[in-house]
Amino acid sequence: LDGYEVFDPMFGYLFNSYYEAVGVRHPRPKRGLISRPSVNDISMYRNYVDEAMLVYLADSPARLDLVELGLHHEQQHQELLLMDIKHVLSVNPLRPAYRNRPILPTGSAPTMEWIGHERGVQTVGHNGHGFGFDNEFPSHDVLSQPFELGSRLVTAGEWLEFIADGGYDSAELWLSDGWNAVQRHEWDAPLYWRRDGDDWEVFSLDGPRPLDPADPVCHTSFYEADAYARWAGARLPTEFEWEIAAAGADAAGNLLEGGELHPLSASGGGLTQLIGDTWEWTSSSYSPYPGYEPAAGAVGEYNGKFMINQQVLRGGCAFTPPGHVRTTYRNFFFPPMRWQMSGLRLCRDA
Amino acid sequence: LDGYEVFDPMFGYLFNSYYEAVGVRHPRPKRGLISRPSVNDISMYRNYVDEAMLVYLADSPARLDLVELGLHHEQQHQELLLMDIKHVLSVNPLRPAYRNRPILPTGSAPTMEWIGHERGVQTVGHNGHGFGFDNEFPSHDVLSQPFELGSRLVTAGEWLEFIADGGYDSAELWLSDGWNAVQRHEWDAPLYWRRDGDDWEVFSLDGPRPLDPADPVCHTSFYEADAYARWAGARLPTEFEWEIAAAGADAAGNLLEGGELHPLSASGGGLTQLIGDTWEWTSSSYSPYPGYEPAAGAVGEYNGKFMINQQVLRGGCAFTPPGHVRTTYRNFFFPPMRWQMSGLRLCRDA
Amino acid sequence: LDGYEVFDPMFGYLFNSYYEAVGVRHPRPKRGLISRPSVNDISMYRNYVDEAMLVYLADSPARLDLVELGLHHEQQHQELLLMDIKHVLSVNPLRPAYRNRPILPTGSAPTMEWIGHERGVQTVGHNGHGFGFDNEFPSHDVLSQPFELGSRLVTAGEWLEFIADGGYDSAELWLSDGWNAVQRHEWDAPLYWRRDGDDWEVFSLDGPRPLDPADPVCHTSFYEADAYARWAGARLPTEFEWEIAAAGADAAGNLLEGGELHPLSASGGGLTQLIGDTWEWTSSSYSPYPGYEPAAGAVGEYNGKFMINQQVLRGGCAFTPPGHVRTTYRNFFFPPMRWQMSGLRLCRDA
Amino acid sequence: LDGYEVFDPMFGYLFNSYYEAVGVRHPRPKRGLISRPSVNDISMYRNYVDEAMLVYLADSPARLDLVELGLHHEQQHQELLLMDIKHVLSVNPLRPAYRNRPILPTGSAPTMEWIGHERGVQTVGHNGHGFGFDNEFPSHDVLSQPFELGSRLVTAGEWLEFIADGGYDSAELWLSDGWNAVQRHEWDAPLYWRRDGDDWEVFSLDGPRPLDPADPVCHTSFYEADAYARWAGARLPTEFEWEIAAAGADAAGNLLEGGELHPLSASGGGLTQLIGDTWEWTSSSYSPYPGYEPAAGAVGEYNGKFMINQQVLRGGCAFTPPGHVRTTYRNFFFPPMRWQMSGLRLCRDA
Repeated sequence: LDGYEVFDPMFGYLFNSYYEAVGVRHPRPKRGLISRPSVNDISMYRNYVDEAMLVYLADSPARLDLVELGLHHEQQHQELLLMDIKHVLSVNPLRPAYRNRPILPTGSAPTMEWIGHERGVQTVGHNGHGFGFDNEFPSHDVLSQPFELGSRLVTAGEWLEFIADGGYDSAELWLSDGWNAVQRHEWDAPLYWRRDGDDWEVFSLDGPRPLDPADPVCHTSFYEADAYARWAGARLPTEFEWEIAAAGADAAGNLLEGGELHPLSASGGGLTQLIGDTWEWTSSSYSPYPGYEPAAGAVGEYNGKFMINQQVLRGGCAFTPPGHVRTTYRNFFFPPMRWQMSGLRLCRDA
Repeated sequence: LDGYEVFDPMFGYLFNSYYEAVGVRHPRPKRGLISRPSVNDISMYRNYVDEAMLVYLADSPARLDLVELGLHHEQQHQELLLMDIKHVLSVNPLRPAYRNRPILPTGSAPTMEWIGHERGVQTVGHNGHGFGFDNEFPSHDVLSQPFELGSRLVTAGEWLEFIADGGYDSAELWLSDGWNAVQRHEWDAPLYWRRDGDDWEVFSLDGPRPLDPADPVCHTSFYEADAYARWAGARLPTEFEWEIAAAGADAAGNLLEGGELHPLSASGGGLTQLIGDTWEWTSSSYSPYPGYEPAAGAVGEYNGKFMINQQVLRGGCAFTPPGHVRTTYRNFFFPPMRWQMSGLRLCRDA
Repeated sequence: LDGYEVFDPMFGYLFNSYYEAVGVRHPRPKRGLISRPSVNDISMYRNYVDEAMLVYLADSPARLDLVELGLHHEQQHQELLLMDIKHVLSVNPLRPAYRNRPILPTGSAPTMEWIGHERGVQTVGHNGHGFGFDNEFPSHDVLSQPFELGSRLVTAGEWLEFIADGGYDSAELWLSDGWNAVQRHEWDAPLYWRRDGDDWEVFSLDGPRPLDPADPVCHTSFYEADAYARWAGARLPTEFEWEIAAAGADAAGNLLEGGELHPLSASGGGLTQLIGDTWEWTSSSYSPYPGYEPAAGAVGEYNGKFMINQQVLRGGCAFTPPGHVRTTYRNFFFPPMRWQMSGLRLCRDA
Repeated sequence: LDGYEVFDPMFGYLFNSYYEAVGVRHPRPKRGLISRPSVNDISMYRNYVDEAMLVYLADSPARLDLVELGLHHEQQHQELLLMDIKHVLSVNPLRPAYRNRPILPTGSAPTMEWIGHERGVQTVGHNGHGFGFDNEFPSHDVLSQPFELGSRLVTAGEWLEFIADGGYDSAELWLSDGWNAVQRHEWDAPLYWRRDGDDWEVFSLDGPRPLDPADPVCHTSFYEADAYARWAGARLPTEFEWEIAAAGADAAGNLLEGGELHPLSASGGGLTQLIGDTWEWTSSSYSPYPGYEPAAGAVGEYNGKFMINQQVLRGGCAFTPPGHVRTTYRNFFFPPMRWQMSGLRLCRDA
């Protein structure tokens, strides 16, 4: 934009979260020490940028694609902010709620069914209609072996059986790095579960609530999801098994606009809970698709540089903004992470 | 107080900083994760306690001693809060000022003189008139060898000579633990000094300012103060040498109420700057006086349990509240710490 | 074996490296503190076990498969021992050699050619003839896209160009975790490279030697191999691309029995250096094959539990014992590791 | 020595443990990775140096003082080697003994008596007859308050009462840093004590042995010694109280040449166990004496640079070589250390 002047030359430094191409930035471990700028300064900055953007875009509609990417990126942060708020309230000894409303039991979950798929060559990845992140491209063919996918998410009630059967004490169920994590962090239940005598409570944005066995289990690490699947005589699906099964599925589900802010029990028959409720761990490492090309410049740092040491999750969760998720959408987290709203669905060889 | 009800049963847990006798408390490394209670809740809590205290004290004047101790403790926190604010603003890349006012050069410091003291048995410690912390008691006799004490604090200009002479690169000047600290933290100047081409600036509550060579050096660790003294062919005084020399000194100085919020150049002759400007490192480890008895209960954790691994500092600083400091007052910090407003005065054997 | 008595009941504890199923074991970080048993005790123990094994196997030929697995496992340790010896000698300031013999330059490497492969469904994994580790099973079909594989390994000379072009200073070439590793460890060359004025020397079991530009580069991490490939406008092959290209390749190469103990320059045309010289990083995360089943008991901990956070390497190296490696053989290391003899071969989409 | 050639120019680097003045040296945390030189090389090196030293000293008797210092330094290492051997054998799961010989109970310890001392000015420090380390100089006067010193060391049986009374669970008995150490390291007894049902065993160079209640307690940290003294209604002596009481004491005791390699029960009346058995923690921080001057050059790094963060111990132990210890001898360790053979004697104000 001709003649644009930056609001404050330090802000580029201050608000650069991780983009190497944009230049140096404040060291992440020291962010907690920054006490300013104030909310007023930030609002002024935001308005200043917004006004300049409106002028700029009126002149340069060709840059709307970058703005669209920015909006989808912002939606990711909205989801992550809710996860952060949940976490920070949960570790507060006062255990405050984000909002207050009555919590109702959700009934019982339907019996899980195994839904079969034949061997075949299938096309996966984004088909090019509508927005997609670069990591969903290019669309390409994969050969899948016969498999059966669970009709719904694993429930908290099923997870209680895993605990009762000594799941957290049985090294043979765990990946080696997972077993190390169990011992280092003394995990004996998913994050936010707290034993209360014979009962369990979980922490949610509505504050502590009794554990509902019909709810999907959530806030498990990949390691826990993987160990549970092994205990259940099954495995996690690959990201392509998940996507093949989900093709054509209704993209509606328990997402942010429903206002639940918590995963809900499945209901009805057939393949359910694909979209919303909890992100679903897959057995696929987060890798580039054949022919993947990151964009040029800082935007190119958006996805590609994180394609190592992480696992793919699919399907969105109860914090995901409306219109943000697709069946080709690839989310990713490190295997030991638990603060994101992640659960699992079982799979097995047919 | 009969019938008193606690404001919130969690607050005792939440606001217990380190008192083992008061019960469990929130783990210190996790304090940064607590986002509430709000300022409003805290105000209500404060008023609630204040009102109850007024009723209680009207009935029980005998407990005024504990309130007096609490007030002196609060004064310590006021001083520490200013040190914390200075630190947190200093690490902010925007380098914001706490307040804005013009900074004037202070002229040149008077020549340092050596003021001699004979060998002798002297009484040190608090004489029992007025308030004193338990660590100032009991008053007792010590035998001191002949010594000479510097008439003023070491200046920033003198410290520049130490730097220019390779002080931070000369292992032989340093205690072994100090040399490790130099290398681990890559110290090459006191905290808050920043090289700006050929000049230096220092950070203060008035924001960055040019280094004034006449000002006392401050924000040095014990290790740096000790190394400087060795380089200067001198040593740090013991806490008793300092106290003996300070006996009868005027308790006025550059303290909080003067509003400088920064140490000032010495002026005039004789022994100056004993009170205020900067806390002065001594060579004395923080130990109990012969016959020392901590009080019973939680108040007993106030001083005694910290009497290891720390060094005594004397004299107050430009952040110290009026009426808070005395010549028998014993402050203490760990040897590598630099965020407190600490400087030094030289001493040597006579 | 009826009536067998254990040599020393503590030895099961002492020599259990990581098998959870075998019971508790000495904590790994504290192994360095163990000073005994002596070499004599170990020899007696070894002979005692050997004798009992011979009796046992004469009676139970059915257990020979477990012994065969043990022998292949031992071969892995022989290779790792040479890598450890190389490392420990390299960090010794005396830089001692494992053996002494003259080092001869190896001439120049042939020009790299791109060898093309069509899209197609191919069978990968072990075909069941001869020994294979469980992670090579089951054999299964994969669909591969058209690709071109480099005819030889990347050379040290080519790596010098990467360094000269600022490869270690260009964040945009690196995965995010890789760039962190570069900065944390201050990497500016592969492990064992040392700048000597304008020249470079590398450390080998023959001691320090001048860097030979025709030799394959080795002791790179996955992060470095990945960054190099990006810089070269190419990528690493998947493990299946490598295996498809290697099918039918001669399994001979620069392995342990040749006595070089160092990777050698390629020679001749066509696809070379597949077996031996250096292990070759692939872009494939170490994951189970579809239908993978670990064995029961402690042997089941051999491979499966490590299938996370690691990358597959193929082809063996100059330390690999004769008869140990196959084109279906899957080695694996964590992405930042460099002490193993690992290099790379380029690949690109056709 | 004219014409002397160094045996190997790398050895100065390799064997420089901590002397900054001698130049760079191998980083301490990486010492464990050095596998050579061999024992043969070391023997040759030793003989080479010995021969040159004999020639040199025949010519330069004036340097015998430096050799004498070296011999006393070597004696310190002999003592530390035994402590290290004890430690490394103790953490070996085989719990091997350094030697084997029958262990006999030692009877019961005599009742502890309080031996009084008047207030007075006393001379402490080395009187200049015979060898002394620089930290024992200069001899100087101190003013001591009236005190009473325990006639013998605290016994293991007395320590059992401290444990039974919840000593390790009572925060109010501990210095703050000590209480942190208790919790971080999960201390519940001195080092080398192991509960065996209702009984206790201790590890010694003779291997594990039943705890003998009459033996002095040893391998306690300063923090434990300090907490025990507080529990017992007493305190640790200052180093000068110890030295004043020990003046004129017989310098014989349970030292290395007696061959016990373990502290023994006290016997007889009066002040006992001053020399030998266990080093005795004092309440004195390790500081320079008034007028202390370190020697010039590398020898000057011997003591002075460690005079911070450590506590003085007095009296020698069962590992101390004959003729090495004196009543003016100042040993020093960091407060949390326990691997040295350290115990305690009580003191109180008269």
